[in-house]
Amino acid sequence: MTTTASSPVIDTARRAKAAAAVLAPQPRTARDGALLAIADALEARTAEIVAANAEDVEAARAAGISDSVVDRLTLTAERVAAIAADVRDVVALPDPVGEVVRGSTLPNGLELRQIRVPLGVVGIIYEARPNVTVDAAALCLKSGNAVLLRGSSSAYASNTALVAVLRDAVESAGLPADVVQLVPGESRESVKELMRARGLVDVLIPRGGASLIRTVVEESTVPVIETGVGNCHVYVDEHADLEMAARILVNAKASRPSVCNATETVLVHAAVADAFLPRALSALAEAGVTVHGDEAWQRAGEQAGRPVVPATDDDWAAEYLSYDIAAAVVPSLDAAVEHIRRWSSGHTEAIVTRDQSAARRFTSLVDSTAVMVNASTRFTDGGAFGFGAEIGISTQKLHARGPMGLPELTSTKYVVTGDGHIR
Amino acid sequence: MTTTASSPVIDTARRAKAAAAVLAPQPRTARDGALLAIADALEARTAEIVAANAEDVEAARAAGISDSVVDRLTLTAERVAAIAADVRDVVALPDPVGEVVRGSTLPNGLELRQIRVPLGVVGIIYEARPNVTVDAAALCLKSGNAVLLRGSSSAYASNTALVAVLRDAVESAGLPADVVQLVPGESRESVKELMRARGLVDVLIPRGGASLIRTVVEESTVPVIETGVGNCHVYVDEHADLEMAARILVNAKASRPSVCNATETVLVHAAVADAFLPRALSALAEAGVTVHGDEAWQRAGEQAGRPVVPATDDDWAAEYLSYDIAAAVVPSLDAAVEHIRRWSSGHTEAIVTRDQSAARRFTSLVDSTAVMVNASTRFTDGGAFGFGAEIGISTQKLHARGPMGLPELTSTKYVVTGDGHIR
Repeated sequence: MTTTASSPVIDTARRAKAAAAVLAPQPRTARDGALLAIADALEARTAEIVAANAEDVEAARAAGISDSVVDRLTLTAERVAAIAADVRDVVALPDPVGEVVRGSTLPNGLELRQIRVPLGVVGIIYEARPNVTVDAAALCLKSGNAVLLRGSSSAYASNTALVAVLRDAVESAGLPADVVQLVPGESRESVKELMRARGLVDVLIPRGGASLIRTVVEESTVPVIETGVGNCHVYVDEHADLEMAARILVNAKASRPSVCNATETVLVHAAVADAFLPRALSALAEAGVTVHGDEAWQRAGEQAGRPVVPATDDDWAAEYLSYDIAAAVVPSLDAAVEHIRRWSSGHTEAIVTRDQSAARRFTSLVDSTAVMVNASTRFTDGGAFGFGAEIGISTQKLHARGPMGLPELTSTKYVVTGDGHIR
Repeated sequence: MTTTASSPVIDTARRAKAAAAVLAPQPRTARDGALLAIADALEARTAEIVAANAEDVEAARAAGISDSVVDRLTLTAERVAAIAADVRDVVALPDPVGEVVRGSTLPNGLELRQIRVPLGVVGIIYEARPNVTVDAAALCLKSGNAVLLRGSSSAYASNTALVAVLRDAVESAGLPADVVQLVPGESRESVKELMRARGLVDVLIPRGGASLIRTVVEESTVPVIETGVGNCHVYVDEHADLEMAARILVNAKASRPSVCNATETVLVHAAVADAFLPRALSALAEAGVTVHGDEAWQRAGEQAGRPVVPATDDDWAAEYLSYDIAAAVVPSLDAAVEHIRRWSSGHTEAIVTRDQSAARRFTSLVDSTAVMVNASTRFTDGGAFGFGAEIGISTQKLHARGPMGLPELTSTKYVVTGDGHIR
């Protein structure tokens, strides 16, 4: 089922597959050596990288791109140094490759070992931030995978410069440069070709907005890992510590609204609505959050003199990624679960409760990547989970679910050793 | 991204999703109770099942279907009893649901638990054998999943009768009947609808021939697990025990040629070709196997008076599933690896060698689901691996690779418990 077509993108993928075969059996020392060479090269060639990035930044400013996006695009000497430090952190992580996941001696004496192996070729499709270029390459290299990087066209000059540095460093360390490649072309067409490179690319990981992810999921014949669309919920139970609930709510919504683990909807048990809604409205207003509420919240808003925007189904479905929150009162924990089942993207939901059986029921019934009890949704993150690295947060059920670290960038193979065994 | 369309197939999937939500939090006792009720009901209603099956068998005979296929289609009272016994074996297997896969207490005191949970709705698309209907349903139920069964139209009456028995039994045990459903319709169209039921069906597992699997992999927007296409290889190393090599070769090829772990190609190191080829030709001939060989094998065939069919690229690519084998002589272990890399389906490859470093190099370089050292390829199988059950053999790298038992029918979720933690 391997494609036989030829094009700049397919040829890149073919070179990646060949390089992956050379990389896969390399021991940790070889992979770590290449990563250290990358960190050194990033520091040594900072000026070149920053100069290339300046082109992208200038073009973005000229195109009237917003300041916050321009900021995410910008590389400075300090930022490059931080990226190099991150690469050295990856070196220090445990090696996922070669881990024996399962092993036994069968009744007939056959020795069975299930061993972690690299996936092969990993394609990453991502948006503006050029630090992802190095980060993704480092995690793939550490896990023995060749990587195909497809960043946004707005970072094309930065990514080209970074990948040149990475390739030189990898080669200087004795590995094939083609383990790190930029997908050629800035057009949408090149993404489509990547999505059809089945048999050459082992997995595609789209990192970015919901529409990018939907397109890749629906059109790709290469296996895809969905990441990071987060319509997260906080449910305030009837047995909640309301002060804790307000603290968690504000943190979950407003500590960093642009990320996928930020909360987008708060659900409050009717029994504590009178006590909690005024407190929540005040805390959210103080944090600069606009509430889009159901009738109960609208009434509470009127009484508190804090206007609440009437919520529609679009609000329950929204991943705002802004200082907005949808808000409803529910008659029961089960009704909260029903709401979540209907509207959630399956990323992270939190319950605030003092009641053990409510916590148990909520964690059992809610079918999301992560369920928090008395903790902010913001904790769903590879760093916060102690994985030391994250290539994305999978919101699908197959292969990986939740923050993906190095083990999630591997597959396994069985090695079975006998002594002439036949069946 | 859930479909909003409506049709008999989509409505079935929607009911499955609702039933899956009820099933998922059920404890093991409830799921095992339903399985025991199924085993009892299969025995109690054997006559009804056998009668329905007779219709399929008669239609297959009338359509001139081959005796071996008719045999696989046929259910007798004994076979139904064996199927019921298999269901009881599934009851005895360890429960995959709720297993804590990973757990830690984070530096900030948050308790992190990664817990196995059911996938949700599993769709199985399979060919003639009606025992798969019960087998697949039992494994899905044991792992807490609702199942959508799409058997072949030639077994439609049998499957309808079996699923009626399963549903009644599940309901009598207090679970929703809709955890087991037959996909309505006998047309190809119903398979296509199933493949587009993204958001309702969590995974599709096609079990059957290569063309069915290719269609599902390429057209499905529902995540797919590829199974069971096997172009397996035996490599006879220069340091092989040649008697062992012949024994393994004949077993790998001829003990059951119709299955995916049967060997389709033998590669022999040039240094032992003169000694091994005559012995192999004789052993294969005795087992009734036709050899499709390269020039070296053809010459050896002439000398031995055993005709060898000249091999073409089609032979290297073939999954014969018959008493045929492709055969080549290779100049080195690395050349054998190259041949395998080019032609194998990535299922199972074996090396026969006495040399430890050859075994190590082969197992390291060959990127297949299973690599055998001095053992027959026929061992790649959930039963032979001691998993107690098998829903198929995955030949892909994501989620599951190799024989899939109960754990492979689950996903995970993170449950994170705090005490008002914010970030």
